Amino acid sequence: MAESVERLQQRVQELERELAQERSRRMPGSGDGGGGRARIEKMSPEVVDSNPYSRLMALKRMGIVSDYEKIRTFAVAIVGVGGVGSVTAEMLTRCGIGKVKTFLFAYHIGNYSLLEYIRFTKAEQKLLIADLSTLTDQGAWSILLLFDYDKVELANMNRLFFQPHQAGLSKVQAAEHTLRNINPDVLFEVHNYNITTVENFQHFMDRISNGGLEEGKPVDLVLSCVDNFEARMTINTACNELGQTWMESGVSENAVSGHIQLIIPGESACFACAPPLVVAANIDENTLKREGVCAASLPTTMGVVAGILVQNVLKFLLNFGTVSFYLGYNAMQDFFPTMSMKPNPQCDDRNCRKQQEEYKKKVAALPKQEVIQEEEEIIHEDNEWGIELVSEVSEEELKNSSGPVPDLPEGITVAYTIPKKQEDSVSELTVEDSGESLEDLMAKMKNM
Amino acid sequence: MAESVERLQQRVQELERELAQERSRRMPGSGDGGGGRARIEKMSPEVVDSNPYSRLMALKRMGIVSDYEKIRTFAVAIVGVGGVGSVTAEMLTRCGIGKVKTFLFAYHIGNYSLLEYIRFTKAEQKLLIADLSTLTDQGAWSILLLFDYDKVELANMNRLFFQPHQAGLSKVQAAEHTLRNINPDVLFEVHNYNITTVENFQHFMDRISNGGLEEGKPVDLVLSCVDNFEARMTINTACNELGQTWMESGVSENAVSGHIQLIIPGESACFACAPPLVVAANIDENTLKREGVCAASLPTTMGVVAGILVQNVLKFLLNFGTVSFYLGYNAMQDFFPTMSMKPNPQCDDRNCRKQQEEYKKKVAALPKQEVIQEEEEIIHEDNEWGIELVSEVSEEELKNSSGPVPDLPEGITVAYTIPKKQEDSVSELTVEDSGESLEDLMAKMKNM
Repeated sequence: MAESVERLQQRVQELERELAQERSRRMPGSGDGGGGRARIEKMSPEVVDSNPYSRLMALKRMGIVSDYEKIRTFAVAIVGVGGVGSVTAEMLTRCGIGKVKTFLFAYHIGNYSLLEYIRFTKAEQKLLIADLSTLTDQGAWSILLLFDYDKVELANMNRLFFQPHQAGLSKVQAAEHTLRNINPDVLFEVHNYNITTVENFQHFMDRISNGGLEEGKPVDLVLSCVDNFEARMTINTACNELGQTWMESGVSENAVSGHIQLIIPGESACFACAPPLVVAANIDENTLKREGVCAASLPTTMGVVAGILVQNVLKFLLNFGTVSFYLGYNAMQDFFPTMSMKPNPQCDDRNCRKQQEEYKKKVAALPKQEVIQEEEEIIHEDNEWGIELVSEVSEEELKNSSGPVPDLPEGITVAYTIPKKQEDSVSELTVEDSGESLEDLMAKMKNM
Repeated sequence: MAESVERLQQRVQELERELAQERSRRMPGSGDGGGGRARIEKMSPEVVDSNPYSRLMALKRMGIVSDYEKIRTFAVAIVGVGGVGSVTAEMLTRCGIGKVKTFLFAYHIGNYSLLEYIRFTKAEQKLLIADLSTLTDQGAWSILLLFDYDKVELANMNRLFFQPHQAGLSKVQAAEHTLRNINPDVLFEVHNYNITTVENFQHFMDRISNGGLEEGKPVDLVLSCVDNFEARMTINTACNELGQTWMESGVSENAVSGHIQLIIPGESACFACAPPLVVAANIDENTLKREGVCAASLPTTMGVVAGILVQNVLKFLLNFGTVSFYLGYNAMQDFFPTMSMKPNPQCDDRNCRKQQEEYKKKVAALPKQEVIQEEEEIIHEDNEWGIELVSEVSEEELKNSSGPVPDLPEGITVAYTIPKKQEDSVSELTVEDSGESLEDLMAKMKNM
């Protein structure tokens, strides 16, 4: 009998050990930094299989980025952790955004249930409490801030990132668990709320302006990965007020086009600058979002949009290549239009107008040489429409590619065609797919 | 004492149950279809949170794809499960490629260690054996075939898909486990070997020609996601011999450009058609792969390349949009060149020449009307170079975008520039980035 008890006790211990191992593979913060790998203090260029940064540090040797390690000093806020936002967060996490911080757990204890807390060993609990006091003294560092209020559903499984066993969990928490396991060197701050309510908006503004690398400093960039017009306008309002640079992203309801856009308040058009953004007009009834009619989505389109978004973020933060102000993706024709938009001096958002004035003053104060460079880089002059779309595609090319193209040399595969030409001069410069006018396009964005 | 034994026995049962639950979340095929969700017999368009296919079936309502369910009837082989291949496999898995099959386990038992097999319950083992006989009767269905022989390393963590706890596992097996959990409706066949050895090449050829939806039928498409020239040439040799349509993908060593290419033997240029593909010339010494100097890589570039690859696969298989023969991605300038290449009548690969003859016969046998359509779609005529690059970019546009562009209207952001013009006429038509000649480009591909 005694032997039997002993054997059973051994078996219990054995099972507890196995269970702990299994959990550490799946659960965050349960002992070994998420079960994946230990945290790394300093990014190394060493070419060994065990170095998760070797391929990124190689960008320096290749002459692409002069100071890759700088990635660790940036804080980025991602609003919306769906098809585009989750992949965006994963890419930034794998790129090593954010800085090593020793009190990682402590910072996250608020996100654990009591049950999870109790599962930690005594030593870990002690560490947590010790770290909490450190945290209070030093202030929290928050590097990747995630905002969302949706739950993971099986209906999201046609996009990358989330997995079926996460169904029912909040998107921000499920994302944080996965991301922390992938890269324990990155810090996360998650907010499981809708930013468009009055109370949450204030908190959102506060986290944007204070949630940077050092608490009290603003984040370096806000990324909009939301799926509706109201949330985009909310981010726009906040960023205009704070003078916060942000990037917008979107995927069409038919899943076959998308875009990214860089908005520097005062320098480039904001989300409220272009009247069509808020005036619905001329939408194809078949693509309108109706009750019970859900939008289509594809992991491909969302993956490409997240990819070009984060590429633009890396180029912007690490200062390499050409940062795009607008890059579109037409998946049907594999056409990628680029353009830039001036801010509208008559913009409805008074903070946008204020930022425009400040930008003008800033440019006026620059030495002559720098002003010329600035003007080449970015448009900031008024014109009679208040807003101007400037297309990379020449009128000649537009003409060539409009409708059927019977006189092209044999063997040329047409990359895109614009079925019908618009008479309106603004629309004529629009480079979006399927001959839609700017108004159509903007009205559709409203429904995204 | 008796009570203590009983309590301990209860505890053992409890722990075993918990452990089984934990394992089912992580491990494939351990009871509930990977712990994620149950298998689904028929794709439904129903808009409910629990339907993983609602957003894909919506593509039909949006008028993009006429028969989305057809995705389940295709078998695709992916060679190379690295930065591009793993994301490619995940996207196809999430799109629901492949068909429901009730003997999923059985088919995979060969991939489990004895230990894992023993972990299955008695009932499951019985099912496995029963299914094995069914399998023998009906033949196996293999839908997503994965080929690789690498192990997951921490050095791969700067790309999407693999996670740190998978370090040390074979890439194909780690991928299969994750993918099966994501979508238990998809079938997987994995091969953990190097396709370029003589023995493995025969097996590879056999699986391409017999591993389709019905055993004995060929796969619908082969995707090359490998990182070296030899493996690409091996796939090319196999596909030319079999007349198998395939798509090639690649990312440059400096991580900031990539491409995809569709190769239909006899119709479009194969990988051996263009002499520069096999003749190294004029490579920038700084970007050459040397011992201890590893290539750079970014999750962004690889994500975009996987996205445009799978988008091209979906368009090709489901018959929507324009399928690209070649689509490049220059991340520095956000430039996406497209082109198509004729096959070379003097190609070194005799099977390519044979396929060209067969294609000509096929076209000649078509009714007049269809021939015209074919000719517009694809180039198959000879010319004096044997191979011709046809650029979507007009000479006019090339001229405009070469070097500095001082006379563009104010406010235009240049999407790309080609720093120096090549004198050679073939090179002049090359649309790749940074003014590289076709030879440079091809030589670099050799090192990818």
